Amino acid sequence: MAVVVTGPADDRPVRWRCEAVDGEARAGWLATPHGTVPTPCFMAVATCGGLKGVTAEQAKGLGQGVMLANTYHLALRPGAERVHRLGGLHRFAGFSGPWLTDSGGYQVFSLAAQRKIDEDGVSFRSHLDGSALRLTPEESIRIQRHLGADIIMAFDECPPSDAPEPVVEAAVGRTARWLARSVAAWRSEDGPGGHRHQALYAIVQGGTVPRLRAASAADALTHDLPGYAVGGLAVGEPLEARNVVLDQVVPLLPADRPRYLMGVGTPLDLVEAVARGIDQFDCVLPTRMGRHGIAYTDDGPLRLKRAEHAESTAPIDGATASEAGALPRGYLHHLLKAGEILGGQLLSIHNLAYYRRLMARCRAAIRAGRYAAFLAEFRSRYRE
Amino acid sequence: MAVVVTGPADDRPVRWRCEAVDGEARAGWLATPHGTVPTPCFMAVATCGGLKGVTAEQAKGLGQGVMLANTYHLALRPGAERVHRLGGLHRFAGFSGPWLTDSGGYQVFSLAAQRKIDEDGVSFRSHLDGSALRLTPEESIRIQRHLGADIIMAFDECPPSDAPEPVVEAAVGRTARWLARSVAAWRSEDGPGGHRHQALYAIVQGGTVPRLRAASAADALTHDLPGYAVGGLAVGEPLEARNVVLDQVVPLLPADRPRYLMGVGTPLDLVEAVARGIDQFDCVLPTRMGRHGIAYTDDGPLRLKRAEHAESTAPIDGATASEAGALPRGYLHHLLKAGEILGGQLLSIHNLAYYRRLMARCRAAIRAGRYAAFLAEFRSRYRE
Repeated sequence: MAVVVTGPADDRPVRWRCEAVDGEARAGWLATPHGTVPTPCFMAVATCGGLKGVTAEQAKGLGQGVMLANTYHLALRPGAERVHRLGGLHRFAGFSGPWLTDSGGYQVFSLAAQRKIDEDGVSFRSHLDGSALRLTPEESIRIQRHLGADIIMAFDECPPSDAPEPVVEAAVGRTARWLARSVAAWRSEDGPGGHRHQALYAIVQGGTVPRLRAASAADALTHDLPGYAVGGLAVGEPLEARNVVLDQVVPLLPADRPRYLMGVGTPLDLVEAVARGIDQFDCVLPTRMGRHGIAYTDDGPLRLKRAEHAESTAPIDGATASEAGALPRGYLHHLLKAGEILGGQLLSIHNLAYYRRLMARCRAAIRAGRYAAFLAEFRSRYRE
Repeated sequence: MAVVVTGPADDRPVRWRCEAVDGEARAGWLATPHGTVPTPCFMAVATCGGLKGVTAEQAKGLGQGVMLANTYHLALRPGAERVHRLGGLHRFAGFSGPWLTDSGGYQVFSLAAQRKIDEDGVSFRSHLDGSALRLTPEESIRIQRHLGADIIMAFDECPPSDAPEPVVEAAVGRTARWLARSVAAWRSEDGPGGHRHQALYAIVQGGTVPRLRAASAADALTHDLPGYAVGGLAVGEPLEARNVVLDQVVPLLPADRPRYLMGVGTPLDLVEAVARGIDQFDCVLPTRMGRHGIAYTDDGPLRLKRAEHAESTAPIDGATASEAGALPRGYLHHLLKAGEILGGQLLSIHNLAYYRRLMARCRAAIRAGRYAAFLAEFRSRYRE
């Protein structure tokens, strides 16, 4: 009997279509209910439903493809039901393109001092007012359904990079059990906002332990999901260690599904991960570093508060087209020294434009079959 | 012999052309070396060369006509020569439309505790680091020449609203002597950046004393200048007192020159002053109040931090077109409560759009000969 190779299941709300492969690197298109974006893509982080210092209209103008918001923060304030009543993330925040929400799993790591894990879920003490927030796989999915993103994430346990192997192993086990519950909760909703409208991604954990990464990936693959994420990186490990994990894990993921590396990273981190087959990224760096007076360039971060820029009529990098890119460095330096919020806004705009352009250059290199050369050139020039 | 009515002197770099008059109110066009803008017009305040929370491109998109910057602040940081070397305000700050710079005279009032006045000028102690800044009429004009605005202001002495009459009288005398020196300094520069490229406006002082206002206006008119400003208002006096001053002073100013009311004000202040023949305004209120969570509407300031807006899907006013105007109030409320700078940015955008639209409505009412009705309707609805 002939083997029937089936295409994507018909009810998958988010699909990734491959356009070109070059080594492990891939260029493609991510189709969502709110638009199709080219990959590799960088997703800007709007933790509380808004980018810090950049409006949704500006983000659109910069070609921002996907916006990311946080379950934990929005559940605490203003509450998922309220976001839902205000029209869901797309209308609430005035960004009509695709959204992704994380599950709160990352806060299990980042807010370790304020939470207690048990088998059923995690109890947080709010970073705002100390009130209690209980997240379980079911509750995380319920919240994310109310937020209404196109892509939602399974609730996972993310251990720190220096966790002992038994701790990582326990987290992998729990992540697997929580994934099954996340999937069940996701599939149980058939109507509006259910699994036909939101795509659930699984998250592969396992730290830097190959055996555990393999086990976590194998478990995730037992669920036929629209996308797969690599979690538990960018939590303190060196770039080298991260690359080793990606070299091992990415080939274990299905070739026809989008692959999302969570919380990464610097421009160099991104081009390294693209080389290893990652399609989606998110990170607070472009806006956070922008607020701190840092502009990303091919040569590395440019610290515009430094006195050497005070008299400079040169643009940031002369290549990244944005409102900030048309201004003299001396002006940006002045705004930053004067403590004007406009300085941070303009550098955030530049950084988002730079990241966007970097992803477009990765795509072009992949399509031209010269990604290895692009990567080598980028590595040789970029300095932290 | 027939009286020859001459048009504007040929070397006047800024001219105002009347389009319609309705009572004392006037609609027209202000032509500058960097573009022609409709009047009445509101000029947004970019104290240090940048709007707080709104980029120059956004300002352009909102139809912002003229941008205002401050001599005192820019002289201290980054220094006028540096702004000049970085291309002057237009290129420095990336706003290619018309600019106006004040003279530092307002800081004689607002920084009263940090300055000493003598007949020659004013010695400031910097609000930044306590260093000395000396402003004289000649130095103020020199700085403004370096900043490169289209409209520059004479250096004046602005007394507080509760100053005794002898103090106001002394300030009027000094303002007259400083105006003569400002004019001489302005006319002395014939080349690039001189009086053929920058328009000097005189400032009429005199507090709320009709005799002193008349004397100050008469003195200002002895200099045939491209424009005339009413200063020394919006310094603590009630709106009623201000309207009385405008009723008296504006008719003393030449009908063919633009009239600028400095530092005013709220939407109601503006429509009242337009009724009295003012063409240009500036004020920090739209951006400052925006940062504090307040949106201007025809009904008065809307305080979006209030709990009543938390669940509101209504737009701010349903009439002012801007990015902020398309968002639900509940989202703006959320951003403000969460301390997200984006909230203040969006309300600043709304407020600038509202002021712009208000000026356009004033123009339309004047052109239609129904300004009195427009004013009456506005007064009856607007509540502080």
